[in-house]
Amino acid sequence: MRYGVLGTGVVGQTLGSALVRSGHEVCMGARTEQHAGSVAWAAEVGDGASTGSFSEAARFGEIVINCTAGVHSLAALDAAGSGVLSDKIVVDVANPLDFSGGFPPRLAVDEGDSLAEQIQRRFPRSRVVKALNTVTASVMVDPGSLPEATDVFICGDDADAKLAVTELLTTWGWEHARVRDLGRLDQARATERYLLLWLALMGTVSSPDFNVRIVRAEDMA
Amino acid sequence: MRYGVLGTGVVGQTLGSALVRSGHEVCMGARTEQHAGSVAWAAEVGDGASTGSFSEAARFGEIVINCTAGVHSLAALDAAGSGVLSDKIVVDVANPLDFSGGFPPRLAVDEGDSLAEQIQRRFPRSRVVKALNTVTASVMVDPGSLPEATDVFICGDDADAKLAVTELLTTWGWEHARVRDLGRLDQARATERYLLLWLALMGTVSSPDFNVRIVRAEDMA
Repeated sequence: MRYGVLGTGVVGQTLGSALVRSGHEVCMGARTEQHAGSVAWAAEVGDGASTGSFSEAARFGEIVINCTAGVHSLAALDAAGSGVLSDKIVVDVANPLDFSGGFPPRLAVDEGDSLAEQIQRRFPRSRVVKALNTVTASVMVDPGSLPEATDVFICGDDADAKLAVTELLTTWGWEHARVRDLGRLDQARATERYLLLWLALMGTVSSPDFNVRIVRAEDMA
Repeated sequence: MRYGVLGTGVVGQTLGSALVRSGHEVCMGARTEQHAGSVAWAAEVGDGASTGSFSEAARFGEIVINCTAGVHSLAALDAAGSGVLSDKIVVDVANPLDFSGGFPPRLAVDEGDSLAEQIQRRFPRSRVVKALNTVTASVMVDPGSLPEATDVFICGDDADAKLAVTELLTTWGWEHARVRDLGRLDQARATERYLLLWLALMGTVSSPDFNVRIVRAEDMA
């Protein structure tokens, strides 16, 4: 498959590298065609990795992954262009957190809304899936780096798009049953707001390398 | 110890019964002195259980637990009275969820705020601890009903008050190391907003009888 990865930060680089390792081709998109971060990433990864503008990366990808900072995601996707994104799966990994007022941050979306829904409204012909935003980048692509199987959450309005994302996650080692489909895209309100707890926990456990494992009474032996 | 439990619903009844089983005395407070729910609860529990108005229950308790519905909590605590609550530990178990617009609900507090902080602002001489609001009532008092040790979160501005709540939780079987102190009371913004994810998960796992277990990379064998 060909993936367009929008964003050159740790999340974009980690996902991009993992996709190439899985045998996919990745174009990493940035605000400028010759972005220092993406060019360095592509040089390091080698075959299968390329770079371009947001628009070029989105055009390249059969699936587009939004790895930009949440407060800039709509601008990045606008730069990619609605025509280019039309009918494509857009995996939204971003978190709309506003740290301008200090810690803890505030959500940068209104109550009763989410970044994923904003993207879906702006690009109604795209198929937005919210996923992976509840774990740090290294855990996204290597859940086996944690000593127990943990849970990850997806939601979206297109069942086929969610299936495609679920399959991608299982190739990275996520247990199929622990890719929890929360339902429609409005559940992104829940996973985006969970980031406040994730940040608090990161402070409490002194590391971003953690995740939650859902424990159910009915799993009692 | 003497506890004042405000609220006659499942949470209040479950916590009240567990406190009496643990050897404490509990007065359950309601809007009226002779509330059918609290009177029936006290009759069933017997010795150690009594009922009264919100004010009587708050006066009775050395520790007061707010188990009212989040959208009514400030009114209930106002009825208890600031004089009565002064210097007492107030354990806020409630969730400010507004279901009036359907599902998923919205938070009934503004961005950058929480019910726990609202209570602390309204009663500045009380020592508010947010706790237990992230699990269903039966799990609150019996974490051993789940097949693995899971995590619970507390926060507040008074260290001694948090210690007292932590000790209470360990008597119910919560592992001390899994009572995660998230820090100051403003972290209640995080645990209250987590309820949106909790509700989504309840739908996905088809039961309220679950909790999350934090899995850290550094626990790798």
